[in-house]
Amino acid sequence: MATFQPNDPGYAARVRESFARQHVMRFIGAELVDLQPGYCEIHLPYRPELSQQDGFFHAGIISTIADSAGGYAGYTLMPTDSRVLTVEYKMNLLAPARGERLVARGQVIKNGRTLVIAKADVGAIRDGEETLCATLLETLISLADNAGS
Amino acid sequence: MATFQPNDPGYAARVRESFARQHVMRFIGAELVDLQPGYCEIHLPYRPELSQQDGFFHAGIISTIADSAGGYAGYTLMPTDSRVLTVEYKMNLLAPARGERLVARGQVIKNGRTLVIAKADVGAIRDGEETLCATLLETLISLADNAGS
Amino acid sequence: MATFQPNDPGYAARVRESFARQHVMRFIGAELVDLQPGYCEIHLPYRPELSQQDGFFHAGIISTIADSAGGYAGYTLMPTDSRVLTVEYKMNLLAPARGERLVARGQVIKNGRTLVIAKADVGAIRDGEETLCATLLETLISLADNAGS
Amino acid sequence: MATFQPNDPGYAARVRESFARQHVMRFIGAELVDLQPGYCEIHLPYRPELSQQDGFFHAGIISTIADSAGGYAGYTLMPTDSRVLTVEYKMNLLAPARGERLVARGQVIKNGRTLVIAKADVGAIRDGEETLCATLLETLISLADNAGS
Repeated sequence: MATFQPNDPGYAARVRESFARQHVMRFIGAELVDLQPGYCEIHLPYRPELSQQDGFFHAGIISTIADSAGGYAGYTLMPTDSRVLTVEYKMNLLAPARGERLVARGQVIKNGRTLVIAKADVGAIRDGEETLCATLLETLISLADNAGS
Repeated sequence: MATFQPNDPGYAARVRESFARQHVMRFIGAELVDLQPGYCEIHLPYRPELSQQDGFFHAGIISTIADSAGGYAGYTLMPTDSRVLTVEYKMNLLAPARGERLVARGQVIKNGRTLVIAKADVGAIRDGEETLCATLLETLISLADNAGS
Repeated sequence: MATFQPNDPGYAARVRESFARQHVMRFIGAELVDLQPGYCEIHLPYRPELSQQDGFFHAGIISTIADSAGGYAGYTLMPTDSRVLTVEYKMNLLAPARGERLVARGQVIKNGRTLVIAKADVGAIRDGEETLCATLLETLISLADNAGS
Repeated sequence: MATFQPNDPGYAARVRESFARQHVMRFIGAELVDLQPGYCEIHLPYRPELSQQDGFFHAGIISTIADSAGGYAGYTLMPTDSRVLTVEYKMNLLAPARGERLVARGQVIKNGRTLVIAKADVGAIRDGEETLCATLLETLISLADNAGS
């Protein structure tokens, strides 16, 4: 993977502050575990409330942390006075998301002037062993902080 | 849109029973509001716990109800002893998902032997007026109820 | 579908001039058949040179006209001194693309300031009857004509 | 990346025979350059006939070789008496596809019983230097050779 140089040396505090404002992260119990320029890792312990009809993590919940991992990977590289919005994403489900914990690893693929393309892989940890259960590919847009969308 | 003939005349009870087992629907407060052959409508009232950093519905939450609306639209047409899994989806965010309620309308596009292709449009209702805020396109697979995935 | 008001009253000439510069359209034999604000229709007669291993139109060729139909649907609404680039697309293949002609109908879903979201449906005409064989959902970006990308 | 064990020891001849029947590959001038279990590489020299309005490779042409690279990566792992069809793909364009040659590298991500998920990265070679210009994520289906689709 490419390595990236952040514009904003204070990127980590800026991303963590935004993550803290994503109430949905606290609601489902997700934690921001690692942050590097162009990289973000989010963990999510299993709870029955997050399941679909077979008792596995619901696809929408998987994408909730995958989208945030990719989005915050992109946001590490954006300027101080910016905000990040998701334009679109596509996610393939590769295996049942069964286990005691999900790990979403977001990674920037292309850091463009306006648009950032990121991917996120999601692993399910079951009895300590990790299986790749989903992969997401997404487009993000960087907006000036005071701009409409 | 095409009209579809369900294989299973008891499709509505079967879908509602599966929906009731999606614990995440109750957790976020989503309701199954309408069901027709090849069609499913899910509503979700706003709660701050579902928001991203700007206070709007989080993209992952939007896709949670959109994926379930498309998936259950497909499941209405599947045989009695089947279950439905999402293979993949792609969602475009069209406007900030801001308002007192989301409405996701899932619709089957193609009802194939093994795979079903569905779409879902999501509207945000704000002061009683609806704005299209997301559109999702997805692939579903029908599995025999006792099969592995 | 929403109706759109073009910014540029001369949009049709501008789009046709850009289409004429897409050499690949002439190479595969595609024709621009209809153009409305937010809408573009492209036809492609069958030739064995466009086929995959079973003799049907290759998925890449289907997306070539679908992407151009969606892209030019978007370009009808962009300003005079702009150019259009495809950011990404997703295409589902719904039925074998078998027949004497393909018809791609591109339609704008959301006309944003920077980004335009469009869809395109592709029908295969066989013995005069049309079958929906693919649907595409895409994101376009409008750039100033003299800008880098 | 995972390494894969092919079911069919004669996979290379089977894939090359199918590639030879994709008339579109010869039409645009694409060559099958490398084949490993779960991997396929296709090259495409530049010709003005393959260009969009700015003189770069058209997105549809990029996806034509990317889809075939991913599809044949998957087909290396399928049984002798099978055929492969593309269910859907999503492609992000990362940089203008400008140069004397494109290189598409398809790689299987998940080799399931019925469905195979693959990715393909496409590089543009310009003055001997390669730039990643597109990434594609796709779903393939394996069908018995004599089955309808």
